[in-house]
Amino acid sequence: MSLTPSARLPVAERLRDMRALMLREGIDALLVPSADPHLSEYLPEHWQARQWLSGFQGSVGTLIVTAEFAGLWADSRYWEQARVELADSGIELVKLIAGQPGPLDWLGTQVRAGGTVAVDGAVMAIAAARQLREKLQQTGASLRTDTDLFAQAWLDRPALPAQSVYAHAAPYAVRERGEKLKTLREQIQAHGAHWHLLATLDDIAWLFDLRGSDVPYNPVFVAFALIGERSATLFTALSRVDSSVRDSLEQDGIEVRDYTDIASALAAVPVDEKLLLDPARVTVGIIENLGTGVALVEALNPTTLSKSRKTAPEAEHIRHAMEQDGAALCEFFAWLDGAWGCERITELTIDERLTAARARRPNFVSLSFSTIAAFNANGAMPHYRATEQAHAVIEGDGLLLIDSGGQYLGGTTDITRMIPVGAPTAQQRADCTRVLQGMIALSRATFPKGILSPLLDAIARAPIWADQVDYGHGTGHGVGYFMNVHEGPQVIAYQAATTPQTAMLPGMITSIEPGTYRPGSWGVRIENLVLTREAGKSDFGQFLDFETLTLCPIDTRCIDVHELSTAERRWLNDYHAEVARRVAPLLAGAPLEWLRERTLPV
Amino acid sequence: MSLTPSARLPVAERLRDMRALMLREGIDALLVPSADPHLSEYLPEHWQARQWLSGFQGSVGTLIVTAEFAGLWADSRYWEQARVELADSGIELVKLIAGQPGPLDWLGTQVRAGGTVAVDGAVMAIAAARQLREKLQQTGASLRTDTDLFAQAWLDRPALPAQSVYAHAAPYAVRERGEKLKTLREQIQAHGAHWHLLATLDDIAWLFDLRGSDVPYNPVFVAFALIGERSATLFTALSRVDSSVRDSLEQDGIEVRDYTDIASALAAVPVDEKLLLDPARVTVGIIENLGTGVALVEALNPTTLSKSRKTAPEAEHIRHAMEQDGAALCEFFAWLDGAWGCERITELTIDERLTAARARRPNFVSLSFSTIAAFNANGAMPHYRATEQAHAVIEGDGLLLIDSGGQYLGGTTDITRMIPVGAPTAQQRADCTRVLQGMIALSRATFPKGILSPLLDAIARAPIWADQVDYGHGTGHGVGYFMNVHEGPQVIAYQAATTPQTAMLPGMITSIEPGTYRPGSWGVRIENLVLTREAGKSDFGQFLDFETLTLCPIDTRCIDVHELSTAERRWLNDYHAEVARRVAPLLAGAPLEWLRERTLPV
Repeated sequence: MSLTPSARLPVAERLRDMRALMLREGIDALLVPSADPHLSEYLPEHWQARQWLSGFQGSVGTLIVTAEFAGLWADSRYWEQARVELADSGIELVKLIAGQPGPLDWLGTQVRAGGTVAVDGAVMAIAAARQLREKLQQTGASLRTDTDLFAQAWLDRPALPAQSVYAHAAPYAVRERGEKLKTLREQIQAHGAHWHLLATLDDIAWLFDLRGSDVPYNPVFVAFALIGERSATLFTALSRVDSSVRDSLEQDGIEVRDYTDIASALAAVPVDEKLLLDPARVTVGIIENLGTGVALVEALNPTTLSKSRKTAPEAEHIRHAMEQDGAALCEFFAWLDGAWGCERITELTIDERLTAARARRPNFVSLSFSTIAAFNANGAMPHYRATEQAHAVIEGDGLLLIDSGGQYLGGTTDITRMIPVGAPTAQQRADCTRVLQGMIALSRATFPKGILSPLLDAIARAPIWADQVDYGHGTGHGVGYFMNVHEGPQVIAYQAATTPQTAMLPGMITSIEPGTYRPGSWGVRIENLVLTREAGKSDFGQFLDFETLTLCPIDTRCIDVHELSTAERRWLNDYHAEVARRVAPLLAGAPLEWLRERTLPV
Repeated sequence: MSLTPSARLPVAERLRDMRALMLREGIDALLVPSADPHLSEYLPEHWQARQWLSGFQGSVGTLIVTAEFAGLWADSRYWEQARVELADSGIELVKLIAGQPGPLDWLGTQVRAGGTVAVDGAVMAIAAARQLREKLQQTGASLRTDTDLFAQAWLDRPALPAQSVYAHAAPYAVRERGEKLKTLREQIQAHGAHWHLLATLDDIAWLFDLRGSDVPYNPVFVAFALIGERSATLFTALSRVDSSVRDSLEQDGIEVRDYTDIASALAAVPVDEKLLLDPARVTVGIIENLGTGVALVEALNPTTLSKSRKTAPEAEHIRHAMEQDGAALCEFFAWLDGAWGCERITELTIDERLTAARARRPNFVSLSFSTIAAFNANGAMPHYRATEQAHAVIEGDGLLLIDSGGQYLGGTTDITRMIPVGAPTAQQRADCTRVLQGMIALSRATFPKGILSPLLDAIARAPIWADQVDYGHGTGHGVGYFMNVHEGPQVIAYQAATTPQTAMLPGMITSIEPGTYRPGSWGVRIENLVLTREAGKSDFGQFLDFETLTLCPIDTRCIDVHELSTAERRWLNDYHAEVARRVAPLLAGAPLEWLRERTLPV
C-alpha cells in the first residue's frame, strides 16, 4: 500500500483534475477529512479519499485544496511520514499542534467573502459542520455539503465492503437482543423522541449482536440503524446477511434493508415526530434526507453508555480471555528471553511471534490493533508502527516497548509492557519506575461512584509529574467487549472535557496506561485494563474501585524496586501472585517456568 | 442580633404587609435572595432584607413569598437554625440539597402562566436573572426586576455603611496603582471594549489600594468603579473619603463620585461603545441604567486574575504575616495545653483566647472570618459557629477542630488544626491520619503550569477515598492579600466546573483543607495555605509546585505516625523544622517550649 516516488505523478494529476472540477462547480476550497459516514477510527478503502488525493498514507490527516494552495494538516506523530510522502506533491505539510489553529480555523480566515467551501457532507459530523459554518461566517464564506466530488473524480474507487456479517453468539453474547432493544426504546422515549438514528458501527454491532470484518481490528460492519417505537431496521448490503442471521433478527422484530435505503427510510420519518441522534456521531449528509418538520433531539447514543457497562457474565468471559491472552504473552516472552543472542530479532519479529502466540489461543479472532513493538527511540513515538521499510533491530542496551492486544469471542485485550534489553540506564529505570507507580496509584484507587473520569487522571500522573515529566495522551480509554479497543464515554485524561457523560460507572472497562516519552531516546508505557466495580456503600455514599483484568508479569528488571513504597510493593506482589495463580494452569514447560520466575515476590 | 420568640409577631406582620404590596403591584411571587448590589459574601445590614422579612438569621438562604405560600430555601448547615427561627412564622423551611431542584426551579414550575415574579434587580446577578427567565419561560410567567418592594415596606431599614475608607499604604501596598490601571486598560482593550464596570468590592479595593470595614472580616467598602480609556471613577459615599485619600487618587487620575452617581455615569456611556463586565458579578439592576446601544462584553473581571497572582514582594510580606500568625497560634496552643484541667474551657473561650493572641501581633487588623472552634459532634458541621446560646464545654475525650484566620496589613491567614482532647479513639486518629495524608499529598505535588485547578483535587482526596470517605466542600479556595479570605478564580474542588479561568498559575495563594465529617460524632479538617510557584521547565513543559505558607505545628498526638509513608514522614519533619526555624524567634517562655516540643521529628 505504500506510495513509492513513482506514484507521485498520479497525485499531481489528481490534484489538477480536482481543481478543474472545483472551478466548474464554483468551489473555492475543498475540505477532505479522514472520515467515513460512520465517523470510524478505521476507514474502509472506499472512504480513503484523502489518501487517494494527497498520497499521504497516515490514518489521520485533513486535506484542504484551493486553486493556489494544497495543505495537509497532521499531528506530530505523522510529520516524518508526511514529509516523505508529500515531497514534490505540491501539497504542503501543515503541522497540527494542540491548542493552535487547525484546518477549520484556516478556512475561517483564508476563504474570501462570498466564497464557497465544499466538503462531502456524508463524511462530516453535524457538530463539526456547525463549527465550520460558524468559522466561515467570520469572512462571509459559505459551506456546501451536498456534493461528493470524488464520485466524479475517483474512477477506480474501491467498492463498499461486502464480507459476511455474522452473529456474536451464545455463550459469549449474553444480553438478550430483545431486552437491549426494549431498553433502548425506553431511553428514546425518555428523551422525548420517537425515532433514533445510529451511524456508529460499534453501537450497531453491539445492539444487534452482530460482528463483521470490514476493517482491520474492529469487528464491525458498515451499516446504519433506525429504531422506531414499533420498528427496528438494520441497513447494510443484503448480500452480507445470510438467512440464519436474517431469521434470528426477524424473530426480534428487526428488518434488514439495503445500506442505501437509509435515505428513503429517513425521508419517510413522519413530519412532527422527533429523532434522537448524537450530533458528533452522525453526519450532515445523512440527515439531509430528513423531512423539514422532523425535529432533532441531540444526545449521546444511549447504547454507548449501555455497552460500556459490561454485565457480570460478560466480565466473567473477559476474565477467561485475559487468562488466555496472558498465557499467549508468557509464551512469547519466554521465547524472547531465550532468543536474545541466538537469533536476529527485529521489531517485526516481535509482532510476528506475539501475533502467532495469540492466534494459538482458543476463541482468538484477530488483533485488536496494530502491534506497537518499539525499541529505544522508536518507543518515544506513542503511535509508532514498524514497517518493512523502517524498523529497528533489537540489539545493544535499552528499552523495548510492546503495546498489543487481541480480539477474542469473549473479550478484547490491550496491554503494554516494558522489556529491558541488555543493561537499561539509571534514567530508563527511573522512568519505568515512575510510570509503574502512576499505574499502581490509579489501579489501587477508590473513588465516589459517578465521578467524572477526567478528574481521576491526576492520581496516575502525580508520581510522574513529580519528576517534571508529562505525556500528551490520555491515561485511560474505554475498551469494548469483543468490540472496538477504543470506546467511550469514559476517558481518564485531564485534557478531556469533564462532561456529565464521562462519569465513571460500574462495569466499565478502561485502560490505565501512563507513559514517558523522551524524543530520540526512548519511551515508556505500562498498561493494564481494569474493570470498574462497586467497592461498597458507606455513610459518605457509594464508592467504586478497579479490578485489574490484564494478567501478565510486569518486568521488574527495569524497575528500581527499592523506590517503591511498601503499599506499591504489596500491590505488585499481590498482582504477580494473581497472575501466576490464574495463568499457570494454561502453560507448561519454558513459558510456565518463565511465568514462575517473573512473578516471584520482590 | 438574634431573633427572640417575641420578635416573631413582626415577621407575620411584615409578611402580611408585603403580600398586600404584592397584590397592589400585581406580583404573584416575590423572590428575596441573600445578596447585595456587589454580590458579596457578607452583607451590610442595609441589604439584609431576606433576614428582615423572614426572621431567619443564617447568612445564606433564599425566600419566596406568594399569596398562599412562603418558603425559605437553606442548605444543610442551616436546617437546625432555620427550624428554630422559622417556627410559627408561617414560612416553610425547604431543604436545599445539591443536585436537586432549588428555589429558581420552584418558581419555574409553580408560577401560573402569565404570572409575574419580582426580584429586586439591584441584588440579582445578570447570569442568575437570565437563568430564572429561562425557567419561567417553561410556564409562560415573566420576571420583573425593576422594583424594590422593601423600599416601601422596610421603614426602619438601616442606612448604607458610612465608615471611613483608608489607604492600604506602603510598604504593604506594593503594586503601583497607576500600573494596575494601565494593565487593566490594556486588558479591557484586548477584550474589544471601551469601558469596564466593577461591582465586586474586593476587585475595587485591590485596584485602588483602598480598604474599608463595612462588613466584618472582609476589609472592603461599598462602591462601584467605572474604568474608561481616559477616565477612572470610584463611586462611594463622598463623606467616607478624606482629602488625603482623595488627593492620592486624583494623582492617579481617579475621580471620586457619590455611590448613587453610578446610575447617571452608566447612562452617559456613549451609545455604540462596548462595556466589559462579568455577568456573574454584576446585577441586572445596575446595567438597566445603560443606554440601549451599549453592547456588553462578558468575561471574568481581569482584576480577579491579576489580584490572585501575588507578586514576590507581596509573598514576602505574607511570609512575615504567617510567622506572626504562627507565633500567635503557638501562644494560644501553649496556653491551651497548660489550661486543661485547671479551668473551664468552652468553644467560646477558644475563640476569645485565640483572637486575643492574634490581636497582640503587629499589623493585625481583624479576624479574616468567624473562628470555628468545634468540639466532637460540633466539628462535624463544617461551618459550625459557637454562640452564647449554644456551645460546647471542652471536656472528656475527643477531637477539637479550630479553623481560624487573621487579616494583617501584610496578608490574610486561614488555618485549621486538630487538637486531641483526652484520649482520641482509634477511628478518630485514623481519620486525622488520612486527612493529613491527603493534605501532604497535594502539598508535595508538582503539576503542569496552567492545569485547571479542579483536576488536582483527586490527589488530596485519594488517601481519604481509600477509606470510602469523602467531604462535601472543596479542598482549596483562593485567598487574598489583606483581602477576602475567599477569592477566585482558582478552586481545588472536583465538584467545580473545569472552566479555563480556573487554571492554576504562579503567585496564587490557595488553601489545602481536606476533611472528614461524621455527623453527630466528630469532624476532622487540616488546613494550610500554599503559594503556587514555578518548579522549573523541563523537556515536557513548565511545572509548578506549592510553597507552604502557613507556619504552625500539626499535632501528631492524634496521628498514627506509623501509618505515614517514608515520604510523608519526611514532609512532616521538614515542615516542622521550618516552622520551628521561622516562628521560634518570635516566641519566648512557655510558647517557645511548646513549639520546640511539638516540632520534634517523628
